[in-house]
Amino acid sequence: MVSAIIVAAGRGTRMGPDVDKMFLTVAGRPVVAHTWRLFDRVPEIDEIILVVREGMGPAFQELAPGLSLRKPWRTVPGGKERQDSVWSGLQAVAKGTELVAIQDGARPCTDASVIQATVNAARQFGAAVAAQRLTDTIKESEDGATIARTLDRGRLWSVHTPQAFRVGVIRDALAAVRKRGLVVTDDTAACELIGQTVKLVESIVPNPKVTVAADLPYIALLLEQQERNVQ
Amino acid sequence: MVSAIIVAAGRGTRMGPDVDKMFLTVAGRPVVAHTWRLFDRVPEIDEIILVVREGMGPAFQELAPGLSLRKPWRTVPGGKERQDSVWSGLQAVAKGTELVAIQDGARPCTDASVIQATVNAARQFGAAVAAQRLTDTIKESEDGATIARTLDRGRLWSVHTPQAFRVGVIRDALAAVRKRGLVVTDDTAACELIGQTVKLVESIVPNPKVTVAADLPYIALLLEQQERNVQ
Repeated sequence: MVSAIIVAAGRGTRMGPDVDKMFLTVAGRPVVAHTWRLFDRVPEIDEIILVVREGMGPAFQELAPGLSLRKPWRTVPGGKERQDSVWSGLQAVAKGTELVAIQDGARPCTDASVIQATVNAARQFGAAVAAQRLTDTIKESEDGATIARTLDRGRLWSVHTPQAFRVGVIRDALAAVRKRGLVVTDDTAACELIGQTVKLVESIVPNPKVTVAADLPYIALLLEQQERNVQ
Repeated sequence: MVSAIIVAAGRGTRMGPDVDKMFLTVAGRPVVAHTWRLFDRVPEIDEIILVVREGMGPAFQELAPGLSLRKPWRTVPGGKERQDSVWSGLQAVAKGTELVAIQDGARPCTDASVIQATVNAARQFGAAVAAQRLTDTIKESEDGATIARTLDRGRLWSVHTPQAFRVGVIRDALAAVRKRGLVVTDDTAACELIGQTVKLVESIVPNPKVTVAADLPYIALLLEQQERNVQ
């Protein structure tokens, strides 16, 4: 039993308080609808938990009928920080769930094979994350204005979602974070804190996140390419 | 007097030995023609040196008449490593050149204002580079398979081109690299080696490099957006 937890509770504050980036339209559908459909169609996923902003439940209810969904789904309210939203999603998974795949609602282009590979790696290692090698030269700056040093790019990975875990692993990891009053930027950082190995699952295809409205044309392009590849 | 050195001598080996990525067509022109035109139109640039593969000079000669160029230009042959090509370009700049702006020929989308800002910063600091803040979480791996630690993203910058320098600075820096028999991945790394301060010039707009043919649709999208913004 594998549950997908789609975190769609972000306030999209970089686009202003009144814009919910999850509902920006791209390639004919709201961003989050693409993400939802994607996970609905991956055979490894048995159910979908959408973690949503307070009061946004009805918007998801309205969206569902147009998506030809096959898997059971429900919404739960998000929390203050991302980790609180994930915690909320974890409370809602079906009894008997062994693995969870946590996804940013704002990443609609993830490759289905990467979702599968991440879930399988989590089954084996306890925790796994979709990651890309860095292709640009990366510099470290101490003052934010000048270069301090060049980093060894061969050791660096950019991590995205999905991040997949055995349920007990992510529960223990986030409980440790909460107990210490920490805020982590991603769920694998919580695993690092408790010494849990996290497997990197290389993703070759672009897997961007909608952060600003200017990201949408590129994301539309990727979604249209995927659509063509499926047909 | 400011010279642009456009490094267009790469063999594009990731696309096979017979593909010269500089001459892949995007938005109606070869990749390198976009880059060339871009630098030709920036008022701060006085001349353009194209560093090209052995035997490719005539292809650039053929390209020029269609580009409505305003600045003097010439081609010089590239070398084995990128730093050898830059060195070759440096030998070819006009007498009296104070500053050089070095550009990857395969980066056709650089914002004109970033070129200007980088040249101006090099005038003031000796060396400067177009750079972007990292938006994804970055992990370090020791074994290439699992996460060792999360890096502090706030200290990390992805550097691109242009990289601009006072002529004396880049000559000294590359001479030091050559003397020690080192290979550096970018010209600012040569500056780090001699203790030269390098200013980071933040570039907000995407500035991708053509590496594989799959990069072209995104680059076409960006070039079309720029075209619309100019009109």
